[in-house]
Amino acid sequence: METNHRYDKDYEEQYEQHWEKLQQTLELDNIEGFRNEFLDMHPYDQAMFFIEQEKSVRLQIYTYLSPEEVADIMESMDEEEQVRDLISEMDPRFASMVLAEMSADNAVDILNEMDKDHIASFLTIMDPSAADEIKQLLHYEEKTAGSIMTTEYIATYKTNTAKQTMQQLKEQAPDAETIYYLYVLDEDKRLVGVLSLRDLIVAQEDTRIEAIMMEKVVAVSVGKDQEEIAQMMRDYDFLALPVVDFQDHLLGIITVDDIMDVMEEEASDDYSKLAGVTDVERPNDSALISVKKRLPWLVILLFLGMFTASLIGRFEETLNQVAVLAIFIPLIAGMAGNSGTQALAVAVRGLASGDYGKQGKMKLVLREASTGLINGIICGIVIMLVIYVWKHDFYLGLLVGISIAATLFVATLAGALVPIFMDRIKIDPAVASGPFITTINDIISILIYFSLATFFMRFLT
Amino acid sequence: METNHRYDKDYEEQYEQHWEKLQQTLELDNIEGFRNEFLDMHPYDQAMFFIEQEKSVRLQIYTYLSPEEVADIMESMDEEEQVRDLISEMDPRFASMVLAEMSADNAVDILNEMDKDHIASFLTIMDPSAADEIKQLLHYEEKTAGSIMTTEYIATYKTNTAKQTMQQLKEQAPDAETIYYLYVLDEDKRLVGVLSLRDLIVAQEDTRIEAIMMEKVVAVSVGKDQEEIAQMMRDYDFLALPVVDFQDHLLGIITVDDIMDVMEEEASDDYSKLAGVTDVERPNDSALISVKKRLPWLVILLFLGMFTASLIGRFEETLNQVAVLAIFIPLIAGMAGNSGTQALAVAVRGLASGDYGKQGKMKLVLREASTGLINGIICGIVIMLVIYVWKHDFYLGLLVGISIAATLFVATLAGALVPIFMDRIKIDPAVASGPFITTINDIISILIYFSLATFFMRFLT
Repeated sequence: METNHRYDKDYEEQYEQHWEKLQQTLELDNIEGFRNEFLDMHPYDQAMFFIEQEKSVRLQIYTYLSPEEVADIMESMDEEEQVRDLISEMDPRFASMVLAEMSADNAVDILNEMDKDHIASFLTIMDPSAADEIKQLLHYEEKTAGSIMTTEYIATYKTNTAKQTMQQLKEQAPDAETIYYLYVLDEDKRLVGVLSLRDLIVAQEDTRIEAIMMEKVVAVSVGKDQEEIAQMMRDYDFLALPVVDFQDHLLGIITVDDIMDVMEEEASDDYSKLAGVTDVERPNDSALISVKKRLPWLVILLFLGMFTASLIGRFEETLNQVAVLAIFIPLIAGMAGNSGTQALAVAVRGLASGDYGKQGKMKLVLREASTGLINGIICGIVIMLVIYVWKHDFYLGLLVGISIAATLFVATLAGALVPIFMDRIKIDPAVASGPFITTINDIISILIYFSLATFFMRFLT
Repeated sequence: METNHRYDKDYEEQYEQHWEKLQQTLELDNIEGFRNEFLDMHPYDQAMFFIEQEKSVRLQIYTYLSPEEVADIMESMDEEEQVRDLISEMDPRFASMVLAEMSADNAVDILNEMDKDHIASFLTIMDPSAADEIKQLLHYEEKTAGSIMTTEYIATYKTNTAKQTMQQLKEQAPDAETIYYLYVLDEDKRLVGVLSLRDLIVAQEDTRIEAIMMEKVVAVSVGKDQEEIAQMMRDYDFLALPVVDFQDHLLGIITVDDIMDVMEEEASDDYSKLAGVTDVERPNDSALISVKKRLPWLVILLFLGMFTASLIGRFEETLNQVAVLAIFIPLIAGMAGNSGTQALAVAVRGLASGDYGKQGKMKLVLREASTGLINGIICGIVIMLVIYVWKHDFYLGLLVGISIAATLFVATLAGALVPIFMDRIKIDPAVASGPFITTINDIISILIYFSLATFFMRFLT
């Protein structure tokens, strides 16, 4: 018998073989053959195969699979919008059965992408107990603990014994989202402790849970922001985190696999914002959707750019006399943008990870000021020398050099101050995108350059 | 009795009380009091307290704690460089004991930040069995599966029974990194299956492991890149992943908590690169370290900017005749940079997440071309109208409008093509930073603008 786990290479080959066979069985309408081959794959791979198919093929596949099997595929997709589109193409009754089979937190994420009428109609034809569970979760705000938690956890009472709890665990294990943490409640159903399966396994059978549970359970309130929760789980290395209401009643748990998706989502989000894309784009977005996500920024920046242009317009007289000044406009504006974006990225990243206290922010500003000054002086001297060699014009070199030095200093400082200020007034600093800070710094740099140029006027040819 | 878990608010208050008490006990040199208070906190909170202290206070704390207790603190810190600095300030013998108490994979991460002489001297004075374990891991390349895996896993043989395995689990649980997956070996110690603790718990006592194990174990080879592993764990929702050599021997496992750190690290890395910072900066970096991380980019961009300047220099004649042209240089260059950065971010993010197949890349390029064209035409018309209203100059408006349209089209396309090209030649597309693409697009936009301007010359005043 050959060993049947595989390296990445073998894995890819096997994967392609799978796909070919699946295509064949679909063409022959060989239900049995398709099911054998398909259900043998990991749900994530099933999902990958699934979304590559034409709609007509997908409609064929739905008829081959049970709602539960389709639910597994849906659960392993990352993009909620994608699942929503798939759900919408199914027969509504079948779709509602699929939603009922999904874990309630994921079903809610999908429903949240639909309009109210659709949600209501799905809930009406759905199995009542599943519908109730979903309704409970539906009213939590998006991106909060409530919206990403699952209610499929295992809870026990503190007065139970280890043996009783183990028995209960065996019964509930198949349905629970995680069995590695058990949550301990008191007689009022308040959360009073947590027990890892590890501790339960090594405990004596007749020990009472309250004797072995950890009393310091870190819980989050139901309205807490998902990004902060991700931060917590990463810092404290939790596999699951309980969610409570304001009276300490256990409402649900958040598991690490959901948090990994949150981390990916938030990272994509910050990254897109830094580049001035208002919303994360998906590979399958059409050009029109891309335009919708990017054009607003471009138009704002266009008008900011017009402001820059009108600013230069004020110095038209200076420009008319010394046209050579225009040559260095993109260089100076560009350097301002670059150094500002660097400072911005460092500050936004630091603020998001909660690395700065009050003192830390002051220190950050001081450091950015020093960094801007040093970078500015070095770049200023370099450009002065280059211009002197190139144009043999000492004063022009001096003008551009001083402008670069001053610009880099101010732009770096601005790059740090803008996100700190936004953080202070409770706006997510990641909103301060690169293009925005770049345009602000364009304006600053041009003011500096032309003010200095007017001053240097009599030395310039 | 009050319930002793807490909300975020309570948590912060408790936290501050802790800190005050800790400071007091330190001042009074009250070892017992300090230990009671300190060891009551989560290791992550201990670490937070620890790094806020002066070096002299930290040296005092080391004498209060055992190497094992200090190791727990070190393990919960995110930054390897930070731990290295702390280790370096300890008495070398104590430091080697701390390293020995850390899990081998984390100790190796720290040692990898030191120079060879330091590593050798630590290993010499270290407990030999711990040193051996570390030496085994030390030769794996950084950022590969080998460097982030731990050897503290639980493995069983396929011929064992469930009862035997459960017994073994109880014995090994305290030392294992995770007990939620058990890895199943054949007589040649090759990995042939995996068993979740969930399945073990619900199994009959006398069942043989091979009857209940999952034969489809997804394993990664020891040299696999950590970013790909993170992607896999997120897609497949694994809590741990086994690492094997080329003969399928189990070498170690990678757990989800280490992968969350990898995800954070890679996200920070991509984010920093987009902003043109060569290396992720830490909050405590001095200005000089910041300069070192940013200046190389700035100098490269300075010379690219000089190239842009010399390009405009070629059109000095044109500029001398129509100085008003200079006014719109930053606007056009800026818009090119902005639209290019947007396209870049979307492409880099998509390539990193493996969302694009061969066809997908072609589709992406087509979409970016359409997006650039649509955005270009809209922005072009807007700016034309604005200039007509502002300057009452139809031809100037037409010139700038057409320039913006052409520039946005080319810049958007370039933003997508550059990362795709880098991906093709096996360079991480994230290296194509925003400032780089911005500067490239500056050059393109200025060529377009001045070429058109030369053509429009006779219509301009």
